[in-house]
Amino acid sequence: MKVRVLTERASPRFRILLLRIWFPFPRGKGLGVRFFAPTAARFTSTIHAPQQTPSLAVEYISSTRENFAMIDFRTDPSSYRHWRLTFAGPVATLAMDVDENGGLAPGYDLKLNSYDLGVDLELSDAVNRLRFEHPEVKCVIVTSAKDRVFCAGANIRMLGLSTHPFKVNFCKFTNETRNAMEDATLNSDQYYMTAIGGPCAGGGYELALATDYIMMADDGSTNVSLPEVALLGVLPGTGGLTRLVDKRRVRRDRADFFCTIEEGVRGKRAVDWELVDEVVPRSQLAEAASRRALEFAAHANASPHARGISLPKLAREIEDRRLKYAHLTIDLDRGNSTATFTIDGPQAPAPRTVDDVLSLGADFWPLAIARELEDAILHLRFNEETLRTWIFRSRGDPAMVKSHDAFLAANENDWLIREIRLYLKRTLKRLDVSSRSLFALIDPGSCFCGTLLELALASDRTYMMRGVRDGDEATPASITLTEMNFGAMPMCNGLTRLESRFQGRPESLDDLRSRIGQPLDASIADELGLVTFTPDDIDWDDEVRLAIEERAAFSSDALTGMEASLRFGGPETLESKIFARLSAWQNWIFQRPNAVGEKGALKLYGTGARPEFDPRRV
Amino acid sequence: MKVRVLTERASPRFRILLLRIWFPFPRGKGLGVRFFAPTAARFTSTIHAPQQTPSLAVEYISSTRENFAMIDFRTDPSSYRHWRLTFAGPVATLAMDVDENGGLAPGYDLKLNSYDLGVDLELSDAVNRLRFEHPEVKCVIVTSAKDRVFCAGANIRMLGLSTHPFKVNFCKFTNETRNAMEDATLNSDQYYMTAIGGPCAGGGYELALATDYIMMADDGSTNVSLPEVALLGVLPGTGGLTRLVDKRRVRRDRADFFCTIEEGVRGKRAVDWELVDEVVPRSQLAEAASRRALEFAAHANASPHARGISLPKLAREIEDRRLKYAHLTIDLDRGNSTATFTIDGPQAPAPRTVDDVLSLGADFWPLAIARELEDAILHLRFNEETLRTWIFRSRGDPAMVKSHDAFLAANENDWLIREIRLYLKRTLKRLDVSSRSLFALIDPGSCFCGTLLELALASDRTYMMRGVRDGDEATPASITLTEMNFGAMPMCNGLTRLESRFQGRPESLDDLRSRIGQPLDASIADELGLVTFTPDDIDWDDEVRLAIEERAAFSSDALTGMEASLRFGGPETLESKIFARLSAWQNWIFQRPNAVGEKGALKLYGTGARPEFDPRRV
Repeated sequence: MKVRVLTERASPRFRILLLRIWFPFPRGKGLGVRFFAPTAARFTSTIHAPQQTPSLAVEYISSTRENFAMIDFRTDPSSYRHWRLTFAGPVATLAMDVDENGGLAPGYDLKLNSYDLGVDLELSDAVNRLRFEHPEVKCVIVTSAKDRVFCAGANIRMLGLSTHPFKVNFCKFTNETRNAMEDATLNSDQYYMTAIGGPCAGGGYELALATDYIMMADDGSTNVSLPEVALLGVLPGTGGLTRLVDKRRVRRDRADFFCTIEEGVRGKRAVDWELVDEVVPRSQLAEAASRRALEFAAHANASPHARGISLPKLAREIEDRRLKYAHLTIDLDRGNSTATFTIDGPQAPAPRTVDDVLSLGADFWPLAIARELEDAILHLRFNEETLRTWIFRSRGDPAMVKSHDAFLAANENDWLIREIRLYLKRTLKRLDVSSRSLFALIDPGSCFCGTLLELALASDRTYMMRGVRDGDEATPASITLTEMNFGAMPMCNGLTRLESRFQGRPESLDDLRSRIGQPLDASIADELGLVTFTPDDIDWDDEVRLAIEERAAFSSDALTGMEASLRFGGPETLESKIFARLSAWQNWIFQRPNAVGEKGALKLYGTGARPEFDPRRV
Repeated sequence: MKVRVLTERASPRFRILLLRIWFPFPRGKGLGVRFFAPTAARFTSTIHAPQQTPSLAVEYISSTRENFAMIDFRTDPSSYRHWRLTFAGPVATLAMDVDENGGLAPGYDLKLNSYDLGVDLELSDAVNRLRFEHPEVKCVIVTSAKDRVFCAGANIRMLGLSTHPFKVNFCKFTNETRNAMEDATLNSDQYYMTAIGGPCAGGGYELALATDYIMMADDGSTNVSLPEVALLGVLPGTGGLTRLVDKRRVRRDRADFFCTIEEGVRGKRAVDWELVDEVVPRSQLAEAASRRALEFAAHANASPHARGISLPKLAREIEDRRLKYAHLTIDLDRGNSTATFTIDGPQAPAPRTVDDVLSLGADFWPLAIARELEDAILHLRFNEETLRTWIFRSRGDPAMVKSHDAFLAANENDWLIREIRLYLKRTLKRLDVSSRSLFALIDPGSCFCGTLLELALASDRTYMMRGVRDGDEATPASITLTEMNFGAMPMCNGLTRLESRFQGRPESLDDLRSRIGQPLDASIADELGLVTFTPDDIDWDDEVRLAIEERAAFSSDALTGMEASLRFGGPETLESKIFARLSAWQNWIFQRPNAVGEKGALKLYGTGARPEFDPRRV
C-alpha cells in the first residue's frame, strides 16, 4: 500500500486538473483521517507545479488523484468536536457548538456555528445513536450552545474551496441526515424540535426545518433566513425550499420574498408566515423549550423500560484494493472502475427472542450488515469517486437470511427490531440516491433473499446465472422473496422497490406475494420480471464483462441524470423532490459561472468584491 | 430603432462573451425573421475580433447582444417547410418531411428528419390548428414522409452550436409541444398515434412517446432507440426517460439497458418490453396505421357536425421598446430588465351564444388573449433573454371579464369553448415554467378577474394598491374570483393555482369559493391570502421599484432554481417531473465538460474524435 502525504502543488494551468480540498491528518480527538493511494492515474504525469497560496490550503490535483486523504464516517460522542449531547429524562438536547478550528480541511474557520462535513457527520452519528442507545429519549431539542448565534449554515469558504463532486456529495449527505431526523420523529417516537436563540441562517434554518417544531426567541437579533439566493447566487442546498412549501406549507409568494432577503424574518411575522411555530422571550427560551419538549415526549408511545444497545466502533480493514468488514467485503477494481460488494449472509438462523437480540447487540446480523453497508456507501461516495459501478454479490445460505427476515417481520413492534428495520430502510435509500451505476450479479452460492434481494431490486440491472458453471456442483442460483420486500423498506418516493418495478401492474405484485418464501430459479425470476438478464454459464462472463466495461465508458454525468430519472418512476414525496428537483437545480447552479465563475457570487463571497452576473435568464 | 445585421466577429478570448447561433434572414417561404436591436449592452465595447471559421456560422457575441435576429413563432400550413398535413375523414396525418436545407440557422443540415426549433414550431402550430380548424379530426397519425427514416431526433450539430440558454429554451418548447399532443389525446378527442417505418432515434422516439399508441414496422432497419447517453453524453431532452417509466411503465432495468445502447430495440422485443404497442410488416404499415386510426376515431366522442374556426396570422407590432397586440401591450425596459405586460380586458360582455363565438372566431376575446399571451411568452423567452422580470398589469372593466368567464363556464361542453379553455390552460402553463420572475401589479383601473386573475396567481409576487393614488378619482383596485379559478386551468402538477397556493388548507378554498363574483379590495384580498403585499399609494412606487431592482441584481440561475422549486409545491405529475427532475438534470449535464467541454461528447459528435470523460461520478 502506497501512503504519501500530498506535498507537491499542481499547476492550475493544466486543463484536466480539478480543485480539491486537502484533508488533514487527525488532530487530537475527532475524525480519523488516513491516506490512501489509488492506482495509476490517467493525467498525473504532468502534475508538478508552482506553489499555491498556502493559506488557501487548496490543492489542484488530477481527477484520478495520485494522493488522497480519506474521510472516515465512524465517530462517537466521546470524539465529537462540534456537538454537545445531554440528557434529561425523556428529553435529549443536541447543542451545536462548532469548534472554529475544527474544520475537516484547512483553509476555512468554522465561525458562527457554520458547518462542514465533519460537523454534519457528528450530527448524523448522534441522530442514529439516539435511536439505538437511548430509546428512553422521546424528544430531542436541537439548539445552539453559543450565546449569540444559532447556526450560520454551511461554511461558505469551505464550499468555495470544494470541488463540484464534493459539494454535491456534501449536500446529499446533509440531506440524508435531515431526512433521518424526520424519520425519527415520524417512525421512532423521537420527536425533533428546534430552539433558536440568535441568527439562524441558510443551512441553519434548513436544519430547523427538518425538525417538526421550531421555537424562536423574540428579540432584535434572532431571526430565520435563507440568504443563499441574495448573497451567494445558489440555492439553499439542504431541502429548504422544498420544506418551506411542501412541509410547512408556507405560501409560495411569501416564500419567494423570504428567500430573496438577506435579513430574514423575525418575531410575529415569522409565526404569521409559518416560518416558525412559536416565539418566546429570549430569557425564557431554554425553559420554554424544555417544557414544550416534555409535552411532546408525553405524547410519544410509551416504551418506558427499553434499554438501549450500544454501537461500538465498526471494525474494518482498508487495503489498496479491498475494504473488509465482518460481513461485507468490497473489492476495488480501478481498471474497470468498479467496487464489488460481497455480502455474507448470516451463518446461523435468527435468535429466538428479542432478548437474545439485545444480548447480541450490534452483532445481530441485520444490524451489523446495515451498519457495514452504510459505512461502505459513504466511504465509496466520498473516497472513491472514480469507482463508477457498484456491483452486488452475496454468498451464504438463503435459508439463514430468510430466518432473519421472518424474525424481523414477526417482531416489528418491538422498538429495537423497528429501529433495525428503519436502519435497513435508510441505508437502502442511500443506495438509491447514490450516483453510481448499480449492478447485481446473482450466481450459484449467492443468498439474495428478502432483505438482501433489495440490493438487487435497487440495482439498475440484475444478471442471474441460468444453471451452474461447467464442472460446478453447486445448486443453481435462486432468489427468494420475503415479507420484508413488501413494505418494510420503501424508497424515498414512498414505494417499495417491487412497487416501483411493477408500477401500474398490481396483479404482478399479488402474484409475487403468493410466492413469498419459495426459491425462484433464473427462468422463473425472469418470467416474473425480477431480474434483467439470465445468461447461462457459457455467456455469463462475457455478458457481464461487456456490460461493466460499457458502463465505464459512458459520461458519468449522463449516467447520473439517467439513473436518477429511471429509478424514481411514479409518485414523488418531499424527500424525492429534495433529491431530484431541488438537488438537480442546485447541481446545475453549482456549475454555472454566476456562482462558481471567477466573478461568481459563491467565489467572491467574503472578498468584498461584487459578483458579475450573466444577465440572461436560462 | 437600430437595425444592423451582425457582420463582425467577436473575440472568443473575451471572458464574458458567450456562444450564440446567428439567425438568418428569411429564405423564401418559411419563418419570418426580423432584426431587432436591444439597447446599450454592458459588455459590448470590446466586441471586435478575429475571423472565426465561417462554416460554423457561429458568432461570439456579448451576453446582452448588440445585434439580434428574432425568431417568429407565427406560421401556418401554407408556410410549412418540414411537415405535410393531410386529411382523410376523421383521420389526419402529420408526416415529417424535414427540408435538409431549411434549418433555422446556418451551420447544420437537417439530415434524416432531424429537427431544430423551426421544425418543432411548425409541429406546434399544426397540433394547435388541428384542434381549432379541424374538429372533425378524431385521430392524428404522426409519421414520416421519408422512406428510409422516421426521425433522427434533435439535430446534434445544431445543439453543439447552440448557447446554453438556447438549448434549454429549445427543450422547453419541444416539451410543451409534446405535452400539447397529450392534452389533445386526453381532452380534445384528437387521439395521437405514431406509425414508424425506419429508424426512430432520440427525439424521434420521444415524439412517438408523446402519442398514445406506437405502431412500428417489423423489418431489419426499423427500431426505436434513445442513444443520447451512449453517443452524446447527455439525456434524451424531451421527456423520454420520464415517459418510459412513468407513462409506458417500462420496467426500470429494461429502460436502463435500452437507454444505454446505440442500436435500439426492434420487432418483438420492442413490443415485449412495451417500448411500442404493435409491430406490423413494413409493407402493411400505412394501411395498418390507417385502420387502427379509424378504430381510435370511432371511439371518440361524437361532435360530427362541428365546423372549425380559422386562426389567422396574429397581428402584432414590434418596436424597440414595445410589443403590441390587439389586447396586449408589452413594454420592454432594458434598464430594469423588465417586460411589462398590460392586458386589456374585453370591451363588451360575452356574446350570447356559441354560434356568436363561431362568428367572432379568433376575435373572441378569451381566444385572442390566449393567442397573444402565448406568442408573447415565446417571443420573450427566445428573443429577450435578458428581460428577467415579467410584470403583469391589466386595464378594463372587471365586469366584462366576469361576463366572459361566466360564458366559458356555462358552455364548457361545447367543443370550441372547451378548446378555448384548454388553450388558456396551456398558455398559463407556459408561464409557470418560464424561467422569469413573475410579478403582478394590481392597481386602480385594473381588471384582474377570474381568468386574468390567474396571471396574478401564477406570479411569484403580487402587489395590490390599497386605496387610490392621491388625486385619482378611480375606484380602488379590486380582484374577483370566478368559476374559472377553480379547476379549468390547472398547473402542470395537476393543481389549480389556488390549490397550489393554499395546500393543506382546504377550508381556505371553501371560503374563497363562497366569494366567487364578489369584488375583493386590497385589505380583504390580503386577509384571504390572495396577494403578497398591499402598499398604499404613498409607498407603492418605492416598494414596487425596489422589488424590481432587487430582482434584477440577483443571479438569474439561482432565481430559476428557486422559482422552479417554490412554484410547484405538492404533487408531481408526468409533466411536472419532465419540467423539473428531468429538465434540471439535463440542464446540469448541458453545462458539464463531459458534454460541452472541448473534449465533451456533444462537442465532438460527428468529428470522429473520441470524447474524454472526467472519471468521477458526481
